Amino acid sequence: MANRNQASPAKKPAFWSDNIAGASPEIIEALAACNFGQARPYGADEGTASVERKLSELFEREVSVLLVPTGTAANALSLAALTPPWGSVLCHRDSHVNNDECGAPEFFTGGAKLVAVDGAAAKIDVDALRIAARTKVGDVHTVQPSCVTITQATEVGSLYSLDEIRAIGEVCRSSKLRLHMDGSRFANALVALGCTPAEMTWKAGVDVVSFGATKNGVPAAEAIVCFDTALAGELAFRRKRAGHLFSKMRFLSAQIDAYLSDDLWLRNARQANAMTARLVQGLKAIPGIDVQGEPQANIIFCRFPRALIEALLAEGFGLYHDRWGPGVVRLVTSFATTADDVDLLLERARHIVGGLSKDDLGSANEGHTA
Amino acid sequence: MANRNQASPAKKPAFWSDNIAGASPEIIEALAACNFGQARPYGADEGTASVERKLSELFEREVSVLLVPTGTAANALSLAALTPPWGSVLCHRDSHVNNDECGAPEFFTGGAKLVAVDGAAAKIDVDALRIAARTKVGDVHTVQPSCVTITQATEVGSLYSLDEIRAIGEVCRSSKLRLHMDGSRFANALVALGCTPAEMTWKAGVDVVSFGATKNGVPAAEAIVCFDTALAGELAFRRKRAGHLFSKMRFLSAQIDAYLSDDLWLRNARQANAMTARLVQGLKAIPGIDVQGEPQANIIFCRFPRALIEALLAEGFGLYHDRWGPGVVRLVTSFATTADDVDLLLERARHIVGGLSKDDLGSANEGHTA
Amino acid sequence: MANRNQASPAKKPAFWSDNIAGASPEIIEALAACNFGQARPYGADEGTASVERKLSELFEREVSVLLVPTGTAANALSLAALTPPWGSVLCHRDSHVNNDECGAPEFFTGGAKLVAVDGAAAKIDVDALRIAARTKVGDVHTVQPSCVTITQATEVGSLYSLDEIRAIGEVCRSSKLRLHMDGSRFANALVALGCTPAEMTWKAGVDVVSFGATKNGVPAAEAIVCFDTALAGELAFRRKRAGHLFSKMRFLSAQIDAYLSDDLWLRNARQANAMTARLVQGLKAIPGIDVQGEPQANIIFCRFPRALIEALLAEGFGLYHDRWGPGVVRLVTSFATTADDVDLLLERARHIVGGLSKDDLGSANEGHTA
Amino acid sequence: MANRNQASPAKKPAFWSDNIAGASPEIIEALAACNFGQARPYGADEGTASVERKLSELFEREVSVLLVPTGTAANALSLAALTPPWGSVLCHRDSHVNNDECGAPEFFTGGAKLVAVDGAAAKIDVDALRIAARTKVGDVHTVQPSCVTITQATEVGSLYSLDEIRAIGEVCRSSKLRLHMDGSRFANALVALGCTPAEMTWKAGVDVVSFGATKNGVPAAEAIVCFDTALAGELAFRRKRAGHLFSKMRFLSAQIDAYLSDDLWLRNARQANAMTARLVQGLKAIPGIDVQGEPQANIIFCRFPRALIEALLAEGFGLYHDRWGPGVVRLVTSFATTADDVDLLLERARHIVGGLSKDDLGSANEGHTA
Repeated sequence: MANRNQASPAKKPAFWSDNIAGASPEIIEALAACNFGQARPYGADEGTASVERKLSELFEREVSVLLVPTGTAANALSLAALTPPWGSVLCHRDSHVNNDECGAPEFFTGGAKLVAVDGAAAKIDVDALRIAARTKVGDVHTVQPSCVTITQATEVGSLYSLDEIRAIGEVCRSSKLRLHMDGSRFANALVALGCTPAEMTWKAGVDVVSFGATKNGVPAAEAIVCFDTALAGELAFRRKRAGHLFSKMRFLSAQIDAYLSDDLWLRNARQANAMTARLVQGLKAIPGIDVQGEPQANIIFCRFPRALIEALLAEGFGLYHDRWGPGVVRLVTSFATTADDVDLLLERARHIVGGLSKDDLGSANEGHTA
Repeated sequence: MANRNQASPAKKPAFWSDNIAGASPEIIEALAACNFGQARPYGADEGTASVERKLSELFEREVSVLLVPTGTAANALSLAALTPPWGSVLCHRDSHVNNDECGAPEFFTGGAKLVAVDGAAAKIDVDALRIAARTKVGDVHTVQPSCVTITQATEVGSLYSLDEIRAIGEVCRSSKLRLHMDGSRFANALVALGCTPAEMTWKAGVDVVSFGATKNGVPAAEAIVCFDTALAGELAFRRKRAGHLFSKMRFLSAQIDAYLSDDLWLRNARQANAMTARLVQGLKAIPGIDVQGEPQANIIFCRFPRALIEALLAEGFGLYHDRWGPGVVRLVTSFATTADDVDLLLERARHIVGGLSKDDLGSANEGHTA
Repeated sequence: MANRNQASPAKKPAFWSDNIAGASPEIIEALAACNFGQARPYGADEGTASVERKLSELFEREVSVLLVPTGTAANALSLAALTPPWGSVLCHRDSHVNNDECGAPEFFTGGAKLVAVDGAAAKIDVDALRIAARTKVGDVHTVQPSCVTITQATEVGSLYSLDEIRAIGEVCRSSKLRLHMDGSRFANALVALGCTPAEMTWKAGVDVVSFGATKNGVPAAEAIVCFDTALAGELAFRRKRAGHLFSKMRFLSAQIDAYLSDDLWLRNARQANAMTARLVQGLKAIPGIDVQGEPQANIIFCRFPRALIEALLAEGFGLYHDRWGPGVVRLVTSFATTADDVDLLLERARHIVGGLSKDDLGSANEGHTA
Repeated sequence: MANRNQASPAKKPAFWSDNIAGASPEIIEALAACNFGQARPYGADEGTASVERKLSELFEREVSVLLVPTGTAANALSLAALTPPWGSVLCHRDSHVNNDECGAPEFFTGGAKLVAVDGAAAKIDVDALRIAARTKVGDVHTVQPSCVTITQATEVGSLYSLDEIRAIGEVCRSSKLRLHMDGSRFANALVALGCTPAEMTWKAGVDVVSFGATKNGVPAAEAIVCFDTALAGELAFRRKRAGHLFSKMRFLSAQIDAYLSDDLWLRNARQANAMTARLVQGLKAIPGIDVQGEPQANIIFCRFPRALIEALLAEGFGLYHDRWGPGVVRLVTSFATTADDVDLLLERARHIVGGLSKDDLGSANEGHTA
């Protein structure tokens, strides 16, 4: 497997991930604008207060907010506040917390265990969750189910419907588990579902959300949003102790403040989602390409003929392939992806596929049977 | 004691800390300039490579560099790489790692112990260190001396001379301890000593330095610089696991890159130090004020008459007082402090003191005997 | 599921586990015999030295030995010495370390991750291991394969053959992983395989073994045996720090010393295994009972008709059921199990089954399809 | 400094520590007596229930009890239940938890910090405690005072009076700190004070006591006694996770059960204390020997002439010296120390001192000034 850091920047547009994009100009302007005079350090600045107000309005209730620079920090701190060291975090096998954080949840919780609960499309199946939530409860030999975490949108670009979140929330309520949402692509999910932030979170039973911004046009900022505001005290100490309390906090709060202003966060997410929709529409019309699932946010997985993958890479397009199965390609769009970027990829793909033999075209399926 | 977050922003200049300043305009410009096109995530960007090259040149040898957003992260990660869970970190009682990081070193090391070694002016006494380094070595009942950490410039604004660092380095070598330098004010110390970065670090026996930038004109970025490059592999995993690996790393590397360009880091430090020197000169001439020690960097401690403290605060000046003893005031200057800021404080202090009775003037000393 | 602590002591013989048995009289005598005069504390006693000598002879090489009171301590300490906090322990999904130690490995390692590798009969499949050992190596986003642990005999009573252990050892060697053996039933496996301790461990690539004794006739004592003696220093600190260093160590060493004397450990294991063999032979002859696998040590799993389970429990026999599937019964024999115990169970089972209808008899299979 | 494990067993009586003694014969008999038939594992045995009943009676209220094999385990588990990872444990600088447990409290708490509070005779000074309890409370940069631990009898053999414990308890109550007692020599303190267990603990504000037995005639068993029974649930998981839950628990419970029967625990403590008193009386009459403090339990510190130390060691007596200052000797008696042991030491000391010159006799004081 190719090291994920090795991918070289393409002259042609790249679809590796939403983290290869830069930031919205509005955010950079906000960083410049806040760089004026003296400000209280450690979160006592005006910007931090403003962010908490805006998030309270946005979520239609009082919330406690802790700003941190990365999604891993947001997730691991949240899980640590919701899970004792002898607890388990019920998560999907394919979740970011389980696979891509190098054990951050284990580190921050003091050694709690992530227990995988399966389900289609990287979503926890509520029936499987119900069983897991009751397994060995009270048995001193086993870590105790304490917390559930769901990713919205998921790592494969699927979405939990409101009903699905509510059903998971109900399991949590009845089994006395806390519910965390990894919202690194919160905005993408929200605009796709067309619901309110409140509906997608606390009204459905979510206790804490990692409110993502970095993947959606911000340099490096995320907000831990606690609907149970009693958690904020503990989290403040945990954040400091983990080195995530910024002294010049204004430079963190300014990012989120601008992100939430003038619907920038929603506009960015709509653009990213629209570009994925455009991509899907185009790809479906190309012979030999098999789009997997029904992409709703800004990530798609598809199967490409081997020769197509190689030709696109040779031309300088950026995409990840063969990590999730032979011939499987992941394409991610971001706020910065343009219709031209998408159309160029589609045009070249159509052209390349047009020149392939029937045998080459079939290679996507070959891969499937391999 | 006043909560350190409660200090209200003054209309008049504040001398609370160097972290109330914003950032050098050059850094903000660099953030804007790097926000262009796509970049490899997670430290594979051009900016990160450039920073490592520049730091290798600056330190006159190959170094490994890990960028993180805060000084607490830099310190705690460094100490974790140098100390096993059953080890002890020998540090000064008054050090930032011991008092002001909410147990971050204990968290990151997996429960190692910070053992205080005393010494004047917040500097570890080398003879006391020699004893501590040999105490209970091999005794399974006791945490084992593993690492020494020194702060340069110290938390009270004093400096380790090159000879002092070398002597500590020699104790470390002979007792097989690793040596870490908390360089949150590295530049302030360097320009005060007038030596090279190499002389102040690895040539004197330092293994890893937390190369600070945030306190010296950067929004939020620090570099862990490893002279023992073998530590970089472990640190990369520890950094990720702690949530300190930025996905859009360019926004971190751009800060340090600009900081190191055109001697910005040295210019900023010289300004901060010069303003403290100007302050010292002025304060020494005011009756009833007692400047403690011989400030060499950008922090001073002095004893003010009670009435002076109150009057300055009432006028809107910002300063911390009575945390380190009755009547003791700490003043910190930064790259952003101007001669006008200093002169305004001095002028007002002279004026206020001029109106005090003999009794009021003596209150600084009263405090002393309390 | 019934809480495992709730099982009530039966007037009839119980087959819950080998830990419901007491201790061999020889061990109790040894405890009495060592209770004489003064002894050096913390492992400097004569008994501890004797144990290390005996284990070195037994394993035909120099070994380092650390005594601890429980198997969980032996396993967790061993794994902590073999796995960094950012590492993963590759283990079978059904292993004791993964399921029955309440996260002790995660706690002792500082948050390393247990990664399940599947395989039939609770044994790690070597091909699956080969893949897992190479997955995401060097990828900073993922915990790094560091250590493999196998249980011998396994939790379901199966055995790794010498060839299987060697194959796993070879994967470890080639992927630079350390190999740990959870030998809580080491003796049962050894006498079943008829090989030497050296063949079953270091000659096959094992670095550290949790040499079990408690399940085989000792009150509470296990030995961590390090073939890589360089690990002993670190383990000594880890053991103390975990509260597992006994001050009156003679009472721990006396247990293992007596256990290893006059082949007591082998005699006990042979008795336990023989009783299971007797049980298997008898059960196979009873209609409606389905013995699973080919039990080689002292544990068997079988499927019983529902009515048989209920009748045996009503009569006062002790056995665990329905934890591993509907109708599945686990029976464990120990050094203290007698032929009379076994014969009584068989006789009653035959009698009860004789009175069951065809429908009742079929219930074992019904469970299977449920 | 001599390694504490290096002391060689003397033909003459040794006074190194109370852990060099064996066990009371009654305890060994109890181990033999409980080794009968099958018993429920993991603490569901009859013996464990009996111990909890006896301790509830003894403490005149319902208590929750967790048995563990070592004092370090009892202390570290207790502190972990009383202190969050970002908390501090206020303890005496000379306490066992601070110096002699190789960081076990830091390990078990997930990296909490032990903060030393001074006071004479290894006892926390209540005024110093009052200040420490309020220091930086609510300051996110600093670990938060969470728990106080006192050792009774202390590490130097002194005792907290009931008034002193009550005063500490009152500070804890008013500052919302939990109070733990390290009672590794609980019985020695109790019989010396002549009070009830209830008076010395919960009536004075203690929440959890490490009820020691190993130093007072038991092979290896301690009881964590929770007056706040709500802590028992968490402690059960922490104990298992730390490898301290015995499967054959009867062998642990039998020790404490016998220890509490027929006042064995009190008789043993009285004997140990009486032997120290006899020692003190004799030593005070010998010229050149300086007994420090007013020993009330079973430990004394005294200053011996250098030549006396050397002569006693040469004759085969066991004692620790020069760890706590030049010429300072620690003598510990146990339940197993006899009047003959004491008298032999006194007789030889008198004889040796009688042969010393005035210069040699003065060496104790020389050491003092060194």
